[in-house]
Amino acid sequence: MMQDFLPPRRLLLGPGPSLVHSRVLHAMATPLLGHLDPVFLGVMNDIQTLLRRTFATANRFTIAISGTGSAGMEAAVVNLVEPGDAVVVGINGVFGTRLATLVERCGGKAIRVEAPWGRIIEPEAIASALQRSGPVKAVAVVHAETSTGAWQPIEPVGRLCRDYNALLIVDTVTSLGGAPVEVDRWGIDACYSATQKCLSCPPGLAPFTLSDRALAAIKNRRTACQSWYLDMALVANYWAEQTRAYHHTAPISMLYALREGLRLVEEEGLAARYARHRLNSDALIAGLMALGFDPLPLPGQRLPMLSCVSLPPSIDDAAVRARLLETYGIEIGGGLGPLKGKVWRIGLMGESSTEANVLTLLNALEELGIRYGWVSAPGVALQAAARVYSGGTGS
Amino acid sequence: MMQDFLPPRRLLLGPGPSLVHSRVLHAMATPLLGHLDPVFLGVMNDIQTLLRRTFATANRFTIAISGTGSAGMEAAVVNLVEPGDAVVVGINGVFGTRLATLVERCGGKAIRVEAPWGRIIEPEAIASALQRSGPVKAVAVVHAETSTGAWQPIEPVGRLCRDYNALLIVDTVTSLGGAPVEVDRWGIDACYSATQKCLSCPPGLAPFTLSDRALAAIKNRRTACQSWYLDMALVANYWAEQTRAYHHTAPISMLYALREGLRLVEEEGLAARYARHRLNSDALIAGLMALGFDPLPLPGQRLPMLSCVSLPPSIDDAAVRARLLETYGIEIGGGLGPLKGKVWRIGLMGESSTEANVLTLLNALEELGIRYGWVSAPGVALQAAARVYSGGTGS
Repeated sequence: MMQDFLPPRRLLLGPGPSLVHSRVLHAMATPLLGHLDPVFLGVMNDIQTLLRRTFATANRFTIAISGTGSAGMEAAVVNLVEPGDAVVVGINGVFGTRLATLVERCGGKAIRVEAPWGRIIEPEAIASALQRSGPVKAVAVVHAETSTGAWQPIEPVGRLCRDYNALLIVDTVTSLGGAPVEVDRWGIDACYSATQKCLSCPPGLAPFTLSDRALAAIKNRRTACQSWYLDMALVANYWAEQTRAYHHTAPISMLYALREGLRLVEEEGLAARYARHRLNSDALIAGLMALGFDPLPLPGQRLPMLSCVSLPPSIDDAAVRARLLETYGIEIGGGLGPLKGKVWRIGLMGESSTEANVLTLLNALEELGIRYGWVSAPGVALQAAARVYSGGTGS
Repeated sequence: MMQDFLPPRRLLLGPGPSLVHSRVLHAMATPLLGHLDPVFLGVMNDIQTLLRRTFATANRFTIAISGTGSAGMEAAVVNLVEPGDAVVVGINGVFGTRLATLVERCGGKAIRVEAPWGRIIEPEAIASALQRSGPVKAVAVVHAETSTGAWQPIEPVGRLCRDYNALLIVDTVTSLGGAPVEVDRWGIDACYSATQKCLSCPPGLAPFTLSDRALAAIKNRRTACQSWYLDMALVANYWAEQTRAYHHTAPISMLYALREGLRLVEEEGLAARYARHRLNSDALIAGLMALGFDPLPLPGQRLPMLSCVSLPPSIDDAAVRARLLETYGIEIGGGLGPLKGKVWRIGLMGESSTEANVLTLLNALEELGIRYGWVSAPGVALQAAARVYSGGTGS
């Protein structure tokens, strides 16, 4: 017989999942209701209300998709892109690259606007792509590029989309709940996220919102959506209070968890939550820089929930991360694709974003650095972080 | 501020979700690991091992898809069906109908073999469709049609698929863990299920297995799979021990739950579990027939985990089900599509399949029947069920 599962204690400081509050874990263990039970339909209503506040939108179509953040990305693309449609895609990391792949799997034409990994996509580059190309169905960009830590400005891209009559698709998988996401003010038409980042729930759902412009585009499709599971015209009939038509069985326990996670966001308040992410990130970066790590994105373009830093040349990536995990129980992330072995991705997301966690990680790194010889003077990282917490300057 | 969520107590006897064992609920509340943590990869290995036993297969590609059972259906179709492919689809309820829709959304040609709702698809009808049509890529049938309670024989369909060199796709969403599913012996090439039926876990994952023939068909595709999220060639690289390549973030807590749910299946033993489902279903049917309900499928074709029964004419469907839910806390299912208002679908799945639950439901129905006048003599249903439990004959 297979043994009981008793996982080791982990401090989750990677690119997600983040730590989950005990209230959310308890919500996961709540006995189930049927997915058409009136009480459960109330849970769905609550989630819609809370998600609208988090996305800063009045969109009536604001739901949680029954899949992970990647399903959210796929849903945005397969519902809005039809064969032959041109889509401008900003590519500066793994997730922009994935967006372009998805556009092509829909028979769309991806017009790639590329920037070096770690940099943002300059709005001017998107403007000139729109100028050069013929009519474009949509522009797709990643707000928080989880593979590089770059923080993409969305508002100027939204203005361009209005000028060129293109829909705006934005990936906020890593940013939602940790930095402002202003769906209505920025003119976003399709916005998707995930639960296991700054919302601090387990992975498994994709918060998702569509503007009325996006809904009109779906209504006017020439072809059936190639996905049935992610066909938002059908999913809408399950979430809408007027219809509640059976489509698939909602992941009930995950929705319990999301409701509770969003309540915690609400109790803290979005402004306080964003400020907490900013402060802890500044302290972390100050400490890491004191240890010789170098942030990949430029100042002012660094995400407050995910720091991507180049390693000092003397550090052995795999060995140190394994040691952090095995001895200290701390998970951080390595680099993806061309950044593999060259960077670390350290997440301070949701419940993981605390002063205690910043200090615990910096302390562990100092100890390992002294043992392996890439830190000479003890205390430099903790002192640099402490200066930020006591009101000194951050990054 | 939004209130705490304190759901009412429910006895889940509908078409899913079923009741969830407290060990599974506790597993859901286990603190999270990263989705690439070596300990979590061990959880994935355990699930593969346990699922292979439940599916009775040696298929190395045996995983849990990060979506509900409907995502499993979509994954089977979008990976195996390419534009222009012909697929014979058995249609005798909602889920066969959905399979045909999915084939068409892939650009495939669905050759519909229809039977009245409640009846099985006769293997002879599939044989003659195969004879009449040209080469066929696959045959798709539903083992347990959740909308009608019909129990489809698979083995003869498997023989036909071998004769005509077609792949066999089988929906075991409702059957897996409650009745024998013999993937290898029956010659199934793609088999998908769900967690919230006879496996008694929360909804959110689709157990899924592919034969080597199916994997070869995927490898030899002429076109890219139209879904990226459900592209099994990519997902395989995440589940395979040799690669573990990041694809999407697995729904970690759901996988904890599935591991524990499958351990419970293992502890009970498949044979004992199937016998339990059979016995409780026989008792339920005996009791319902004593109350004037009439099973929709023919004897010998009735699912042991989901009973679909026509209502006596004097019963008001919606009113009685609402009363069952509100007064007794018992959920049962109504009819779908053309059966709406005409049948009930009563699930005795996994943890829900107990003698106590059968007697509780029959007792509630007798009480309501006496109150509303469609039962004259008290005790008839309970006596009929008791005869089954004491060794008398069932349906």
